[in-house]
Amino acid sequence: MEPSWESSVTESINAIYLLFSAYLVFVMQLGFAMLCAGSVRAKNAMNIMLTNVVDAVVGSLSYYLFGFAFAFGEGPSENPFIGTSYFALHSIPSSSYDYSFFLYQWAFAIAVAGITSGSIAERTQFSAYLIFSFFLSGFVYPVVAHWVWSSSGWLSSSSSSLLFGSGAIDFAGSGVVHLVGGVAGLWGALIEGPRVGRFDAFGKPMVMRGHNATLVVLGTFLLWFGWFGFNPGSFGKILVAYPNTVNQGNWTAVGRTAVTTTLAGSTAGIVTLFGRRLLVGHWDALDVCNGLLGGFVAITSGCSVVEPWAAIVCGFFAAWVLIGLNILALKLKIDDPLEAAQLHGGCGAWGLIFTGLFAKEEFIIQAYDSGLIGASRSSGLLMGGGWGLIGAQVVELLAIVGWVSLTMGPLFYLLHWLGILRISMDDEVAGLDISSHGGYAYNAHEEESGPRFYGDYMRMQNN
Amino acid sequence: MEPSWESSVTESINAIYLLFSAYLVFVMQLGFAMLCAGSVRAKNAMNIMLTNVVDAVVGSLSYYLFGFAFAFGEGPSENPFIGTSYFALHSIPSSSYDYSFFLYQWAFAIAVAGITSGSIAERTQFSAYLIFSFFLSGFVYPVVAHWVWSSSGWLSSSSSSLLFGSGAIDFAGSGVVHLVGGVAGLWGALIEGPRVGRFDAFGKPMVMRGHNATLVVLGTFLLWFGWFGFNPGSFGKILVAYPNTVNQGNWTAVGRTAVTTTLAGSTAGIVTLFGRRLLVGHWDALDVCNGLLGGFVAITSGCSVVEPWAAIVCGFFAAWVLIGLNILALKLKIDDPLEAAQLHGGCGAWGLIFTGLFAKEEFIIQAYDSGLIGASRSSGLLMGGGWGLIGAQVVELLAIVGWVSLTMGPLFYLLHWLGILRISMDDEVAGLDISSHGGYAYNAHEEESGPRFYGDYMRMQNN
Amino acid sequence: MEPSWESSVTESINAIYLLFSAYLVFVMQLGFAMLCAGSVRAKNAMNIMLTNVVDAVVGSLSYYLFGFAFAFGEGPSENPFIGTSYFALHSIPSSSYDYSFFLYQWAFAIAVAGITSGSIAERTQFSAYLIFSFFLSGFVYPVVAHWVWSSSGWLSSSSSSLLFGSGAIDFAGSGVVHLVGGVAGLWGALIEGPRVGRFDAFGKPMVMRGHNATLVVLGTFLLWFGWFGFNPGSFGKILVAYPNTVNQGNWTAVGRTAVTTTLAGSTAGIVTLFGRRLLVGHWDALDVCNGLLGGFVAITSGCSVVEPWAAIVCGFFAAWVLIGLNILALKLKIDDPLEAAQLHGGCGAWGLIFTGLFAKEEFIIQAYDSGLIGASRSSGLLMGGGWGLIGAQVVELLAIVGWVSLTMGPLFYLLHWLGILRISMDDEVAGLDISSHGGYAYNAHEEESGPRFYGDYMRMQNN
Repeated sequence: MEPSWESSVTESINAIYLLFSAYLVFVMQLGFAMLCAGSVRAKNAMNIMLTNVVDAVVGSLSYYLFGFAFAFGEGPSENPFIGTSYFALHSIPSSSYDYSFFLYQWAFAIAVAGITSGSIAERTQFSAYLIFSFFLSGFVYPVVAHWVWSSSGWLSSSSSSLLFGSGAIDFAGSGVVHLVGGVAGLWGALIEGPRVGRFDAFGKPMVMRGHNATLVVLGTFLLWFGWFGFNPGSFGKILVAYPNTVNQGNWTAVGRTAVTTTLAGSTAGIVTLFGRRLLVGHWDALDVCNGLLGGFVAITSGCSVVEPWAAIVCGFFAAWVLIGLNILALKLKIDDPLEAAQLHGGCGAWGLIFTGLFAKEEFIIQAYDSGLIGASRSSGLLMGGGWGLIGAQVVELLAIVGWVSLTMGPLFYLLHWLGILRISMDDEVAGLDISSHGGYAYNAHEEESGPRFYGDYMRMQNN
Repeated sequence: MEPSWESSVTESINAIYLLFSAYLVFVMQLGFAMLCAGSVRAKNAMNIMLTNVVDAVVGSLSYYLFGFAFAFGEGPSENPFIGTSYFALHSIPSSSYDYSFFLYQWAFAIAVAGITSGSIAERTQFSAYLIFSFFLSGFVYPVVAHWVWSSSGWLSSSSSSLLFGSGAIDFAGSGVVHLVGGVAGLWGALIEGPRVGRFDAFGKPMVMRGHNATLVVLGTFLLWFGWFGFNPGSFGKILVAYPNTVNQGNWTAVGRTAVTTTLAGSTAGIVTLFGRRLLVGHWDALDVCNGLLGGFVAITSGCSVVEPWAAIVCGFFAAWVLIGLNILALKLKIDDPLEAAQLHGGCGAWGLIFTGLFAKEEFIIQAYDSGLIGASRSSGLLMGGGWGLIGAQVVELLAIVGWVSLTMGPLFYLLHWLGILRISMDDEVAGLDISSHGGYAYNAHEEESGPRFYGDYMRMQNN
Repeated sequence: MEPSWESSVTESINAIYLLFSAYLVFVMQLGFAMLCAGSVRAKNAMNIMLTNVVDAVVGSLSYYLFGFAFAFGEGPSENPFIGTSYFALHSIPSSSYDYSFFLYQWAFAIAVAGITSGSIAERTQFSAYLIFSFFLSGFVYPVVAHWVWSSSGWLSSSSSSLLFGSGAIDFAGSGVVHLVGGVAGLWGALIEGPRVGRFDAFGKPMVMRGHNATLVVLGTFLLWFGWFGFNPGSFGKILVAYPNTVNQGNWTAVGRTAVTTTLAGSTAGIVTLFGRRLLVGHWDALDVCNGLLGGFVAITSGCSVVEPWAAIVCGFFAAWVLIGLNILALKLKIDDPLEAAQLHGGCGAWGLIFTGLFAKEEFIIQAYDSGLIGASRSSGLLMGGGWGLIGAQVVELLAIVGWVSLTMGPLFYLLHWLGILRISMDDEVAGLDISSHGGYAYNAHEEESGPRFYGDYMRMQNN
């Protein structure tokens, strides 16, 4: 028995779409690495880049062995809490999933630990990082993904029994990915405490600028590029026609999703640009980058189900959520070097609420029912959809905060109690790179003669 | 009524092709940011990267609200000068345009201001940048795009009444994008005058090297990567069969366009490599990068309508255009830190002429008439096509130079007259990053003890 | 005569797939540039980046003019050693090849010289580089590609007379690309000898760290990204149904290839992480990057024909091959600044053997016979396939080592004999950038007043 022509064409088109989207999502790992490296001090650059590489390589094996099974295991015997089939890709390709789907989800899984690594940067033991990263991306995150994205999940929008008759809509994971990473990071930052010197003896915050703004901009643009895989790619299939239209289908909604993503991020970036100009008196490039990312995080939940104008609303408030939470974090003396808890946690939470307010029924039916004629869906509260959807969104938000707090909180505390979470003060002052990784990221080669680099040049000037 | 199977397949394939091309074009914004950052001094790196981020985020809103409407508004009531429909994506998706087309064109629009920012780098007030960037990418550029690329434009190659029976062929925008950005940059550079110290008291040019060649190479390769979206992507649709062939269609022409792009850029790079070796005596990596980009700019107009061998001719002369104009700019004491006016303006103009000389009728019919049997088109002068096409190309060149000069020239002059164009000499010497953006791009963290970075290491050596 | 609907759809889908894969492979050139730049000392960064740019631009012309013809020239008159048609793209598009195939193969060709440039970094005359790069990517490499990948090649797996009834399986080129580049690099490194100061007077190796680990990580991630084009892209066509399945085709195998690639690289990265922790006592980010790349190189041969679990085996041993060869190279006092001979040569050779051990017949029939029912193929020795395949793999390995040694060895020796291979010791100490390329890659702008950069800051501290 041979695949039919129609089936072959459909599979090929969808595979190209999903695979290349996966490759883009993978680029986000590079984006995180550059963003994080640039945002920390030079003495810790190697450390944080290694954590990003390790997220990817360890995540490959753990997601292959069991993470994917926990998240997307499905079948008659499946439960709404955790999946139990497809370990080590057993039975893949199945009638539901091909390798391309695994690869796409793998690229998501490795991103989660990368978010959290920002919150605990510059002071965490590398072995502790290995443990929490493995636990977070191999277990905590896949479980949440199962709840929301697997058809057997209790929060799912595509299951047979929808929570509140609606199910939660978290299309590409404001909650599943970003809030999970952000809450984990918050617990890490709280339990580790601030970096040495972050607050002075009177509790006044000291500025600790990252060592390289170019890397921050590079990372931000790469994340934007990758988000075109993250959000529009989450449709999974592009060749799906909408029966009540003349020439629309997922190809239309995919494009619209790329547009809403762009508009939300851009609006948040602009608001941050002008907002920070008013608040601090100069045009701050790094804050614009973070504002932009906050807008992307927020739209990630509703990207496929809102109008472009609503995406602008989403981005506008995302910027203020981020600005506000950053002020709050300073007051509470929480030291999150990458603002990851505020950005991914705060804007991720806002994204879930936003979707509950602005989701449009027509677009929900397109994204979740392939535009089925006669289908009906709970839409956003402000779109006249009642309390079903917003209720489910709030439940997802609370469930994620609770679940991650109950798993990652104790883990971080255990590592702390065992004395293997935070590095010693001496090592922190010296920097992780020299204390744990064998050397600095940057080398001026003073060992040789002749003016070749900044340091050498200066030595000659002074001798 | 449901989209037919054939229609769904066609739309899906073309949407994948156009969306992923758009993502590639977006990468060019990152490429510009890195190229520009590396080409300026460290004290202005943050500033110029912020301008690239701002081009993207401001351009998203302005192109959404009105830029796209000015460029591609169409319908019976449309005029050949400026479009007037589709404001804020109203009526999109239409029978002509889907969201993917908007996204693709957005990625083009944000590139234009990025070109110009290079010409006025290291001395422009950020608020002035915001004004000119908004005006250029929101109005000046979309109008030119309407002339050439909208079917109602007076220079269009796909309208019902073709200028000189031919219309101008500017496939991906040597003129529409690069010449527009370059001419705007020239006026900016002229009105602002050279950077402090660029020419000594006797008018002799002083070398002002950028601070980081690695970023220049990074940016150049990213621009090359993005150009694969810019030029081949401009077909818009890949699933278009040519009726007089056995197995050719846009898929063939798209591949050929990628090849001509590669050959033109490469040839220009090689010619610059050896040309500069002869002229200055060493192998200059940065000049090769600029030569390469000059070749890409030049082929952008004719990439889809010339033979591969002609692309080599295109690149050969593009290199000499760039080398010659750079010498001329020095003689005229024009200080364009990125050579943007010479590169995008000069090679963009050459590209328009080149197309008028070497365009092949068969390929024009493929690119503009889907290979229609019996169609006839004016081809390049040297290909025996007479004066129609080259005439239209010259008219486009002159029209762009005139329009941009008449709009951007007065704008720059007004900003200059109001005293808000150029920063003070003190700020310029100190650098834009510290004077306008709150700090330098690079931080060596001198505040702490222990050898962690170049500076600290040296301090210890000397104390 | 018009292309049929089915043919148009097929051509479009396969063209998108192959073109975007080619763009990804092209990104590897950027990845190499960043990896190499970060791995050398700052004084040679410009030089090595220029070699990467030059590989691309010179390779464009040489591959267009004759490289592609040598590799893929085919027809009744073709011989198994070297192709002789399609010079300068004559007769392209043909019934076999469209422009997209040329572009894809071009991206491979320019990578080869980039591998070799790592082995001879920091001490080679640029004019010598031009000569060997032109000869390697224009002649030596295309000949090997013809042997293995052209249907008329004597090692081919798709010819009518298969070596040992099997032919060699080197799907994306562990041998054709990486072993070729690595062996060439080995001869270069041997003939040039170690860098000044690499071994002290007693033969003890001195550490020579690269100047920028951030660039190494950036380059590694970009190479990973590009490998998604390199390995899965090598199918060439994605719309090929497997007749004995319900819904599988090349789209399935392409996804599986992306998965095996990811798993092999990740495993090698993890093994290197822990292996080096045991061996040297710290978590070494740069070694993890090289381990990862070694895993990718090794799986490149068998990526399409092995199970995911086998890819883990592949990566596990690749890490130890790399670690072992690095120890051996130190003992033999071979100085290869990028470990290119060990990594691309050693892991490439292991990849050929691995395929001969673990290739699965079903997958070989999918990759090489489009899943033809009733086809039979020699599979890996450990999969019960007998000695045919492993024999052919060993023959490919020996043939490549012999051919590259017999061509590149004498060439390097000739350049050495003529005194134009290696730079003078003075130039080497000063650095290639200042001696050959007109200046350093990094400029601190000491010429101006005010604290703006490391150097200036220090000057003020000390004065």
